[in-house]
Amino acid sequence: MAKPQIKIDYKNVMADVIGEEHGITRRRWADLAEKVELLIPLVMKEIVGFKRHPDITRTRYGLLPVNNKIAQKVKKQVDKISKKGKCDNLVVLGIGGSALGNIALQTALNPYMYNLDDKLRGGRPRLFVFDNIDPAQLASFLSALGDGLKRTVFNVISKSGRTAETAAQFLLIKKILKSQNSREKKEVHLADHIIITTSFEKDKKGRPQSTLYKIAKSEKPNLPLLEVPKGVGGRFTVLSAVGLFSAAMCGIDIDELLAGAKDMHDRVSCRDFKKNPAAVTAAVNYHYYKYGKRNSVIMPYAFALKDMADWYRQLWAESLGKRFDLNKREVWAGPTPIKALGVTDQHSQVQLYREGPNDKLFTFLEVKNFNNDLIIGPTPKYASELNCLQQKKMSLLLNNEKKATEYALSQDQRPNLTVLFDRVNAHTIGQFIYLYEVTTSLMGALLDIDTYNQPAVELGKEATFALMGRKGYCKFVKMPYKKFAQQIKTATKTNKKYLV
Amino acid sequence: MAKPQIKIDYKNVMADVIGEEHGITRRRWADLAEKVELLIPLVMKEIVGFKRHPDITRTRYGLLPVNNKIAQKVKKQVDKISKKGKCDNLVVLGIGGSALGNIALQTALNPYMYNLDDKLRGGRPRLFVFDNIDPAQLASFLSALGDGLKRTVFNVISKSGRTAETAAQFLLIKKILKSQNSREKKEVHLADHIIITTSFEKDKKGRPQSTLYKIAKSEKPNLPLLEVPKGVGGRFTVLSAVGLFSAAMCGIDIDELLAGAKDMHDRVSCRDFKKNPAAVTAAVNYHYYKYGKRNSVIMPYAFALKDMADWYRQLWAESLGKRFDLNKREVWAGPTPIKALGVTDQHSQVQLYREGPNDKLFTFLEVKNFNNDLIIGPTPKYASELNCLQQKKMSLLLNNEKKATEYALSQDQRPNLTVLFDRVNAHTIGQFIYLYEVTTSLMGALLDIDTYNQPAVELGKEATFALMGRKGYCKFVKMPYKKFAQQIKTATKTNKKYLV
Repeated sequence: MAKPQIKIDYKNVMADVIGEEHGITRRRWADLAEKVELLIPLVMKEIVGFKRHPDITRTRYGLLPVNNKIAQKVKKQVDKISKKGKCDNLVVLGIGGSALGNIALQTALNPYMYNLDDKLRGGRPRLFVFDNIDPAQLASFLSALGDGLKRTVFNVISKSGRTAETAAQFLLIKKILKSQNSREKKEVHLADHIIITTSFEKDKKGRPQSTLYKIAKSEKPNLPLLEVPKGVGGRFTVLSAVGLFSAAMCGIDIDELLAGAKDMHDRVSCRDFKKNPAAVTAAVNYHYYKYGKRNSVIMPYAFALKDMADWYRQLWAESLGKRFDLNKREVWAGPTPIKALGVTDQHSQVQLYREGPNDKLFTFLEVKNFNNDLIIGPTPKYASELNCLQQKKMSLLLNNEKKATEYALSQDQRPNLTVLFDRVNAHTIGQFIYLYEVTTSLMGALLDIDTYNQPAVELGKEATFALMGRKGYCKFVKMPYKKFAQQIKTATKTNKKYLV
Repeated sequence: MAKPQIKIDYKNVMADVIGEEHGITRRRWADLAEKVELLIPLVMKEIVGFKRHPDITRTRYGLLPVNNKIAQKVKKQVDKISKKGKCDNLVVLGIGGSALGNIALQTALNPYMYNLDDKLRGGRPRLFVFDNIDPAQLASFLSALGDGLKRTVFNVISKSGRTAETAAQFLLIKKILKSQNSREKKEVHLADHIIITTSFEKDKKGRPQSTLYKIAKSEKPNLPLLEVPKGVGGRFTVLSAVGLFSAAMCGIDIDELLAGAKDMHDRVSCRDFKKNPAAVTAAVNYHYYKYGKRNSVIMPYAFALKDMADWYRQLWAESLGKRFDLNKREVWAGPTPIKALGVTDQHSQVQLYREGPNDKLFTFLEVKNFNNDLIIGPTPKYASELNCLQQKKMSLLLNNEKKATEYALSQDQRPNLTVLFDRVNAHTIGQFIYLYEVTTSLMGALLDIDTYNQPAVELGKEATFALMGRKGYCKFVKMPYKKFAQQIKTATKTNKKYLV
């Protein structure tokens, strides 16, 4: 392992550092180690298709193993578009797992001014990710885009190909592109402007299951397709075509991402608890969840890592928020992930973090070397109270603030972990992603729940379709959609009695 | 009241809607009403200078009353800059209360593409708010800015004028602007590029207390100054020069903001609990905090309101996260504010919100009319499963998704409130801001804490200065800074024993 590896510093959860009341004693640590060591091999098998419990009958892999073939396919697609040479804007239409990883990679690995500075991009497209259906936001974008639409590529991402939000966006864009045809009296090929990323799975009769897949194959010429890997939940797909295509289009080194993930794979496969960063991270999180600290705050001290917190937030919440355990007992499990940003949130949340209820575990992300640094200017002589800042590196101030916060929280017996990055680059980001995917799997195993499903999302989806006027019978709630819609309308109707 | 007022829909917290176990019974509601009605006049006096408890001895007003004179001063300053006609970029340097309101107003009241589309701005400056000291982020900005620095104005905001982060940014910018002088061999006047927003308070000997104020007055020509109102905590200053200047520079109607706040002032002054939206909102939040739902999720269903959640998050956390009550009893109080975004987070957090621990109160923000709408396109015939979406307004889909989520959460007895906006504009945003400021004050009164201080932030600040090498004696920790720094370094040093 020649390249620097991210490390977990867990001293501030130990009882000999933050005290017995809120720290983990040596005895407890040994218990946790024993418990987790048994689960490591099970979880690592889960990654490649093993089922932890006989009741889990769906075909799936848990999380996606590192797969370089996917990267090759993605790069081919990127080359094709580059050759056509008309992509100034790449627009990702997707939501949840089809957007959060894309955003996180972009913020982490491209400069802050990427979209605003043509020189910086060196011919690469600007990236926009729309993971919402706010009409004012989208209308503002389309209006500003104007004629730039001709040099815009839309990457539409949905596993089922019928996610309501993404489908609505897709139908809108399709309409707009087609209207160009009549306006300009020359053919606009959808295939030049739309790339579909969706499931390639077929049903027993060999028919494609994804609606977007069907649409892609029905257009003439066919729309280009990339695959959402089989059996992997959206929140675990950032290292598939879902996350890699937009990254590669914007110049991110996706091979390095996968190399980082592979390095982490080796480390988290280790059966020795104290050498396995996923095992230690999961054990700490599990301990605090069990002992009344059900909020898990992730607080990067680097703007680049800001959106990794959002990615983590989905991974954690959808994987671990579960009503039933594998024995069908009601457990209503799930730590609540909370994102914060250092140093910004020192001036917003730290008052609460120190003096509010001691119900949180903190995970800091700390970066040793920034890809760019700045030197603070000299202090005027009539402002000597600022002398200690002058001519210092700004990264030094940032990292000292992190230390100061770590110190202050530890003084108040608030347990905290730190993920240490030597530097933010594709290699360390790949490590981080894989580390947290496996940590999530281990947490799910410790909580004895099904980490990879998301049953509670279904009701809202069906309710939306009902309200939009879908026809027919809703199997999920066992009544016609029309009746279901009526029920929701009655339940959500504003009642003047309860309005102020 | 001719203009539409925002409303609170609180039916989904009532026991007759979501059940006795998690809902508020009529009896409890009457108790809450009685308790809050006693506090309304006290809190409204607090706003204009009353002290709820004799032990609170500092001079302060609590929150800032609506003040049109401030808006006049701000507009004068904006006019001065417009006349000079060389502001393409406005950069706010501030943190916490000196940034969150600015960002929230911009996202709420200017179009999504404001910074990226010159036509849209009609000559107004792009807005950048740096509320962090990440060197890579700031370096990327400065590098992309390049020669644009000449047409850039920096609004440096810090009440004390020595907030470490803002001071560091200021010293950096000052250095860069001065270096322009030598490079271009002509005078660059700092006064053309820097506007200071800070406290104008003087000590007993008549000396200005703010470091930035001193610097502004020492430069020749003097740097223009705007005032941070006396005795008001940063998190309550968005409707002062702190938040209003950048808003007005970017074309936001600040008179309408204040008119909205004034309308809300009248409504929240009402002593009749059931007619007072702040009273009802505070009562609901207090009830759930007391009965084990200590997480408070705010979830706007509009991109425009996304950053209002961040503003609220500071307001709530710093005001209510308190170790002691007014009788000096240890209470470790404080609900944890959590921000989410509809519909985006339906695909990230709703699984947890429905099936995780029932420890959250949800506040949705719903917008009836969007300032712009889009019509979804037609469905291809081989994708009939999407028929219910075709030719519908996108805002209808968005709001139906909100209803679907509200329905799903209520079915699971998860209490939720909705703040209803007829439309997002300066008037309703002014209302919202004032509503939540007063709600926060009422919550503080219900919790019997000091809503307006933030004692826990001090240790981290002093620790930072110590680590940066400040000289002399630290009164706060009662030891020399040097010794203090040594203590922090020892405490935060990486120990290989706890590293993986």
